[in-house]
Amino acid sequence: MKILVTDMTPLGAMDLPEGVLALPFDERRRVPEQHRDAEALVVWGQNPDLESFFADLPHLRWVQTLQAGPDRIMAAGLPEDVIITNGVHFHDVTVAEHALALALANLRRLPECLEAQHEHRWASELGGIQPLRPKGRVTTLWESNVVVWGFGAIGQTIAQRFSAVGAHVTGIAHTSGKRAGFTVLAVGDADEALRGADVLVMVLPTRPDTHHILDARVLDLLPDHAQVVNVGRGSTVDEGALAAALSEGRLGAAALDVAEVEPLPADSPLWDAPRILITPHGAGGRPVGVEERVSHNVRALLGLGGEMIGVMPR
Amino acid sequence: MKILVTDMTPLGAMDLPEGVLALPFDERRRVPEQHRDAEALVVWGQNPDLESFFADLPHLRWVQTLQAGPDRIMAAGLPEDVIITNGVHFHDVTVAEHALALALANLRRLPECLEAQHEHRWASELGGIQPLRPKGRVTTLWESNVVVWGFGAIGQTIAQRFSAVGAHVTGIAHTSGKRAGFTVLAVGDADEALRGADVLVMVLPTRPDTHHILDARVLDLLPDHAQVVNVGRGSTVDEGALAAALSEGRLGAAALDVAEVEPLPADSPLWDAPRILITPHGAGGRPVGVEERVSHNVRALLGLGGEMIGVMPR
Repeated sequence: MKILVTDMTPLGAMDLPEGVLALPFDERRRVPEQHRDAEALVVWGQNPDLESFFADLPHLRWVQTLQAGPDRIMAAGLPEDVIITNGVHFHDVTVAEHALALALANLRRLPECLEAQHEHRWASELGGIQPLRPKGRVTTLWESNVVVWGFGAIGQTIAQRFSAVGAHVTGIAHTSGKRAGFTVLAVGDADEALRGADVLVMVLPTRPDTHHILDARVLDLLPDHAQVVNVGRGSTVDEGALAAALSEGRLGAAALDVAEVEPLPADSPLWDAPRILITPHGAGGRPVGVEERVSHNVRALLGLGGEMIGVMPR
Repeated sequence: MKILVTDMTPLGAMDLPEGVLALPFDERRRVPEQHRDAEALVVWGQNPDLESFFADLPHLRWVQTLQAGPDRIMAAGLPEDVIITNGVHFHDVTVAEHALALALANLRRLPECLEAQHEHRWASELGGIQPLRPKGRVTTLWESNVVVWGFGAIGQTIAQRFSAVGAHVTGIAHTSGKRAGFTVLAVGDADEALRGADVLVMVLPTRPDTHHILDARVLDLLPDHAQVVNVGRGSTVDEGALAAALSEGRLGAAALDVAEVEPLPADSPLWDAPRILITPHGAGGRPVGVEERVSHNVRALLGLGGEMIGVMPR
């Protein structure tokens, strides 16, 4: 069996069964003639014309995507018998770390420190002896209330990271319950938790029911000192409502790694909103554990043991 | 017994034995006549003339400082029978969190993201699909090598925080051993660990033997991609050598919460060094657990049970 493996991400050696050959290729171009017999792909899904790309691969049995949410590949019209496995867990640690970096940067007022630094100014007002919990501002995650909206694998890792620095974490998801040791509320029952949130971390996928789910109503529920972090998808945030809440002082700060339109247009009101930190969709993109997963999923596909991980419903 | 308690930090109610009275006061001024009978103080040590300040308090038996390292109070000539207790643990969580914020900000390239943001520019080169471990750069604490130099209470908390996001942490201290579950190397045996460090977190007190301990020699040991964070004391870093290492590309990045002279003078070469992030001594200053400690130490002082915590050798 021939597996074509994207060259966009450096990968280590894979432990593959005999007769399975993994070859690097450039997924952004059409597949070269001599490799159109490939039966499996490991790809991001970055080809600009996925339908033609897949049409060149009539023997395809399995696509391992590196993305947690392989929206484009799911929509590319692959035959129903082609198994698509997602990149569940590949991005847990990097996205959770980025979310923590963004939250801490705003809590510790690093953007203001950098502004002062440009002026060669030691900003004494941002340091020295300070109240731990001043009115109207959050200075620490220690014993803060953090709400993580979206409680899949990445959300659970975010919860663990914030919890490890002393935050009280509550999740929001489709269905309530206890997950990874955290209380998870159903979306419809989360208003009270949002009213008490010091930090809200959004990590939701693009779906019809998550569109603009962080809207003016939810922003109004949050305390004025609350900080918002989005490391999910830009479509889940009403950016106009967010910019207004920041401008009108109804939100403490925001940090966005994603935008509804990427790259974020130069004329977006978000750029100049006060107390906002924008990173260019850099939370993930650095998958961890791909080699082991491919090795495992190949074995499962070939009936050599185990179940395939991350199989998407077709 | 009358205890005067600084009004520089908001404190909650204290559970004190009968007959013990805690009164707020302004430690930056001389003690008012009617309070010169005080037998105990809870202070930062911020009075500009500590010797005269203490001379007004002839009945003083005990000074509880809020600083982890009460250098100024120790040097203020108090009679030897006055007990001085330090602020051990008061700053563990805040300083550790700030150290994590600084390290993550540089690893996730937030200063460069903010630069791009000022230009309304989505900095695609800082996001998207990236290698997890590019040559010459650290992008994540996950499975990175972190060395924490200074392994007292704050250093141990830093180690726990970095470990919780997946870093391999080694300590450096006066004496080697296993502390809080981490391997700690003696200063003289740490060169190998420094050669393998992705991040070096400094959290050393001011002492003759820590003066400029991070000097050109140690900076040369560190890999060129390594990042330095200092949340200890500015005196422990040779700032000229640090600025040179950054300018010459021999160090990945630096983040300093402290400087040898504070406020850092406007003409310091640090301000314009590349890849540096400076915060104005804001890591701590927000003590946690003061009320319980005062309550405990009062009881111990009065022989009502327990040992005083944080007694400084006189």
